[in-house]
Amino acid sequence: MELHAFFLMLAVILLSARFLAEFGSRFGVPAVIGELAAGLIFGPSLLGWLEPGETLKILAEIGIILLLFEVGMDTDIYRLAKAGSKPVVVAGVGFVLPFLAGYAVSAYVFDLPMLASLFVGGTLTATSIGITVRVLSDLGRRSSDEAQVVIGAAVLDDILGVIALAFLYQFAVLGQVTVASIGQVSLFILIFMLLAPVAAKAVAWVIDHFDRKSESPGLLVTMVVSLIMIFSYVAHAVGAPAIMGGFAAGVALGQGFKLRLGGGSSPLSALFNRVFSASPELTHRLEGQFRPLVHLFSPIFFVMVGVSLDLKVVDFSSPFVWWMAFAMTVVAILGKWLAGFFIRESRLRQSAIGLCMIPRGEVGLIFAQLGYQQGLLALETYAALLIVIALTTALPPFALKWYYGKWGDRPELAG
Amino acid sequence: MELHAFFLMLAVILLSARFLAEFGSRFGVPAVIGELAAGLIFGPSLLGWLEPGETLKILAEIGIILLLFEVGMDTDIYRLAKAGSKPVVVAGVGFVLPFLAGYAVSAYVFDLPMLASLFVGGTLTATSIGITVRVLSDLGRRSSDEAQVVIGAAVLDDILGVIALAFLYQFAVLGQVTVASIGQVSLFILIFMLLAPVAAKAVAWVIDHFDRKSESPGLLVTMVVSLIMIFSYVAHAVGAPAIMGGFAAGVALGQGFKLRLGGGSSPLSALFNRVFSASPELTHRLEGQFRPLVHLFSPIFFVMVGVSLDLKVVDFSSPFVWWMAFAMTVVAILGKWLAGFFIRESRLRQSAIGLCMIPRGEVGLIFAQLGYQQGLLALETYAALLIVIALTTALPPFALKWYYGKWGDRPELAG
Repeated sequence: MELHAFFLMLAVILLSARFLAEFGSRFGVPAVIGELAAGLIFGPSLLGWLEPGETLKILAEIGIILLLFEVGMDTDIYRLAKAGSKPVVVAGVGFVLPFLAGYAVSAYVFDLPMLASLFVGGTLTATSIGITVRVLSDLGRRSSDEAQVVIGAAVLDDILGVIALAFLYQFAVLGQVTVASIGQVSLFILIFMLLAPVAAKAVAWVIDHFDRKSESPGLLVTMVVSLIMIFSYVAHAVGAPAIMGGFAAGVALGQGFKLRLGGGSSPLSALFNRVFSASPELTHRLEGQFRPLVHLFSPIFFVMVGVSLDLKVVDFSSPFVWWMAFAMTVVAILGKWLAGFFIRESRLRQSAIGLCMIPRGEVGLIFAQLGYQQGLLALETYAALLIVIALTTALPPFALKWYYGKWGDRPELAG
Repeated sequence: MELHAFFLMLAVILLSARFLAEFGSRFGVPAVIGELAAGLIFGPSLLGWLEPGETLKILAEIGIILLLFEVGMDTDIYRLAKAGSKPVVVAGVGFVLPFLAGYAVSAYVFDLPMLASLFVGGTLTATSIGITVRVLSDLGRRSSDEAQVVIGAAVLDDILGVIALAFLYQFAVLGQVTVASIGQVSLFILIFMLLAPVAAKAVAWVIDHFDRKSESPGLLVTMVVSLIMIFSYVAHAVGAPAIMGGFAAGVALGQGFKLRLGGGSSPLSALFNRVFSASPELTHRLEGQFRPLVHLFSPIFFVMVGVSLDLKVVDFSSPFVWWMAFAMTVVAILGKWLAGFFIRESRLRQSAIGLCMIPRGEVGLIFAQLGYQQGLLALETYAALLIVIALTTALPPFALKWYYGKWGDRPELAG
């Protein structure tokens, strides 16, 4: 791509996303929907001005990683741990239900081959944490109790989704799966998630130490972006999605991550926190310097999601497309929504959690595109899955907006 | 390039640039030299870890454009105008002297063909405003009187350099030059530079108006980056270097750009400024939100300049390379340094201005690479030019550092 053509595309992305987000917000539509619409309008679906070139893909990925970093910084890991088994239950049920139902309906109702059915099931599993978090932010609910459960569950969901993808991909390529390789990937992810916060905390100490001494400005933002990039690289290298690196770095540099041995008052905890915790002042400055970066980059991701959905690919005359899309949309919505009811919460909060888990997006798209590329999914099945992803990505913000508008003041949903 | 490989490269660029800049500053070396060294060490010259891929090139270009935007914001256009003919004289002499001397020495001393000699002369013409500005910033001299002259002259220089490039490129490709096409390009640049600030000021008014009303945050940074991208696109489209767009946008959004009819007290000026000027509060917030972006992106450019200088290309055994490099380095340094003495200033300031004009960098590299690609420059000539560019890029920061250290306190050089 020519340099100046890229400049123009970037301007079109930023301006159209902002304009449609502002326009939509006048009618109560969450900003993320405006950004997706910008991608659909200016992407191949309609005008064809935007093409998903290498650089835009990288910037979009950096956008979602930076957003996850901000989410990680805001995530109180002890509150997440206090939520206990709930995210695990929501993630587990929300993974198994759509996967099995998607597989069963594809294989027995629509007579798809086994491998194709497995890919359809896989496509329906992973929650798009980015879209969910953005919608919750737009509604001012990002620090609510249900958001803690949803974010935890979506993170687990992503890991489950990627493991399933690795599993199915090997199955498709090799014709067989070795338990050892899957176990190895899972083990790596586990170790990474445990060690990453400690490593990041040590780096935070270095930043904290040198930022006070450094003569040239900008050390903070440069070091943190480098840290996020390295974490994302390591996450990818051990088989986890790159966004997990941004999330882990954010958790580690946030104020929520502190050792609280003996209720936080033991001498060991005090020593550890004095040595390893980022100072509140550092965290505060970091948030101030990062907000412009996140605001600049994260819309690129959501616009590019819209760009990657080429509605022209869909053959709208085929009844199979519509029936398949209808059935899978029902499976995708029910599978996630019902998962909310497997934990002990008020009915209203169970329902809210289930709704929050519905958006699919990136991992689902990766699943569907991989299946199509590998020749496992027919064009019509692929088209139906694109519709499902579009609907499950586009509708939940409206549903959540409506839901919180109607029930948000009730004591069961209040902070 | 794989996504995760890019993450690692970006981290290597940011960390090595920062580390070498910090390390160098302990020994009084300007930060920009550390960043260039990072590019030489991790680029193809030594370790070969960094490759100039499409995305890195784009990010580097965005880095230099954002830096020029910041420079533009800090540039008081009336102070520049008050400097009057000085930047024009410095730019003109600093263009003509190295060009003619470079041509003459190449053609008559080294017996190069006419076209090759013209390309050698052209390579020596354009000052690297980015490196100069960075060094002046590092020395705390960016708002000094001589910086105003140097920035103005370097901007004019870049325009002259690009026009010369267009001229020579057409000469090389077609075997002839049409005066009409060159005139057209120059006219476009002139109109662009006159109209851009007015257009940007109108956009600033829109931003100012909507940023107060907008419900979602981040409007300011998104709109301004979009504006800079569009300006850069237009600049390129009319044949000017893209960085001119960033500079023009910065001038327009800064506080230095105000109508001052009748000494600034006429009713017409007051009305114009009330309607078109960005509020001081907007300018202030803009500077605060932009600094992290500039600090993050601008080092990428300087590292990539280092990456683009592959020292392995140089055949160090050829005496021609050394004589050519020596002669051209003398021409390049004297041609710019002497230009400072053509304006009426104190001797110390004349000399400082001349020294500031010496760094070459990007446009010189474009010249040399184009001549090499077109088969006009032999490998040995190309290698010699790379040495000249490396020396004239790397030495002036030391010279300036030394110069200001020795004479900076004298009244002729003080603010």
